[in-house]
Amino acid sequence: MYLPEHFNEVDPEAVASLIAAAPLAALVAETREGLIANHIPLITTKDGALVGHVALANDMHRLIDDGQEVLAIFRGVDGYITPNSYPSKAEHHRAVPTWNYQVAHVYGAIHFQHDERSKRAALGLLTHAQERRVSGDKAWRMSDAPADYIADMLAKIVAFRIVVTRTIAKSKLSQNRDARDFDGAVAALRERGESALADAMEARRPKGA
Amino acid sequence: MYLPEHFNEVDPEAVASLIAAAPLAALVAETREGLIANHIPLITTKDGALVGHVALANDMHRLIDDGQEVLAIFRGVDGYITPNSYPSKAEHHRAVPTWNYQVAHVYGAIHFQHDERSKRAALGLLTHAQERRVSGDKAWRMSDAPADYIADMLAKIVAFRIVVTRTIAKSKLSQNRDARDFDGAVAALRERGESALADAMEARRPKGA
Repeated sequence: MYLPEHFNEVDPEAVASLIAAAPLAALVAETREGLIANHIPLITTKDGALVGHVALANDMHRLIDDGQEVLAIFRGVDGYITPNSYPSKAEHHRAVPTWNYQVAHVYGAIHFQHDERSKRAALGLLTHAQERRVSGDKAWRMSDAPADYIADMLAKIVAFRIVVTRTIAKSKLSQNRDARDFDGAVAALRERGESALADAMEARRPKGA
Repeated sequence: MYLPEHFNEVDPEAVASLIAAAPLAALVAETREGLIANHIPLITTKDGALVGHVALANDMHRLIDDGQEVLAIFRGVDGYITPNSYPSKAEHHRAVPTWNYQVAHVYGAIHFQHDERSKRAALGLLTHAQERRVSGDKAWRMSDAPADYIADMLAKIVAFRIVVTRTIAKSKLSQNRDARDFDGAVAALRERGESALADAMEARRPKGA
C-alpha cells in the first residue's frame, strides 16, 4: 500500500477501533486458482490473532494451505473531497479532488480449525461483540437455540485463526490540509449528509488545525 | 468467492450501480513482494473497462507487470443481522446471526498509462462523475486550475486501465428468509439507524415476500 508519512496510521488503538467498527474483512489469498477473496466478519482475540468462520461449502479452506499468508483488508468510511470545499481554492485555484478513507491491511498465517471447540469459540466471540452492540441486555446467545440445531450448524462451518505477522494502516483524512481547508472539507461533507466521514476526519484533526 | 445460488448477483445493472455508488476499490495483486492492495476510486468506461490513477510514487505500477491479472473489490453497505430480529425466532429459536453485504469482484488485465492524454482522460472521467454528484452545476473542472499546476500534478501520477475478464458479484441481503423474518430484519436495521443497508435489502426483496 502506498503510504505517505502523513497518512501512515501508527496508532494501534486507532487500528483496533477501525477493525472493531468495520469487522467485515475482504480476506484475500493467492491460490492455485488465482487470487480469491471472501468477505468475512473477523474479530481480534486477546492475544492479537484474528478469528472467523466460513461455510464448509466455501472452497476457501481447500484452496488455501494451512499456514499460508493471507491479507485481511478492513475499511472504514470513505468519500470524495471536492476542491470546491477548500476556501483557499477560490483564491489560487491550485487544488485537485481527492478521496478520503481509513483502511487496515492485516497480513498473517491462516490456520483452519475443524474441531467443535474452536468453532464454538469463533462463533461465541463474534456473536458476543455484535449482540452487545445491537441487542444490549437482550443479547442472543448460542444457547438460545436448540442443541441439535446448533450441532447441525457447527457441522456445516469451519473456523480459522490468522496469526498476524504485519499490519499496515492508512488514515487518509485531509491531515495534509491547513485548518481552513480542512474545516471546509468537513463542513461540505456534513452538508451532503456524509457525517460519518466528517466525524472520522475530526477525530484525526491535523496538528495545529 | 463462496456464492450460493440465492446470493449470486447476476443483474449487470445492479453490479454497475454498486460500482458507481461505491467506487473506492481495493485493488489487489500478487507480486514479487507478495500480496499488495491499494484503495483507489475506479470508474467504468463506456467500453466496460475500469480506469483509475495512482501517485507515481506508489510502487504498485512497478510491482505489477503490464497485462497482469488484478482483482478490484467493490463493496456496498454491510451490517450484522441478529436472530432477535426474526419473528420466527421467538417460536422455534432455530436461527443464527449472519452478516449482510453487497460486493463485486472484478478481475482483469491491468495496463499502466504514462501518456498525458490517458492521464487527463482518467482524471476527467472520475472528476466528472463525482462533481456532478456533489457540486451539480458548480462542478469543479480541471480547467479551473492554472495550467502549470495541472501539468505538475499530471507529471506526478500514472493512469491505468483494467480490461475486465470476469466479474462475480454477491448480494447477501436476507433473500433466503421468508417475508416475515425479512421484514423483521429490515425494521431492526432501521431502528438502529442502519437505513442504507435496509434500503439495499428492500431493493432486493425476496420473491414472494
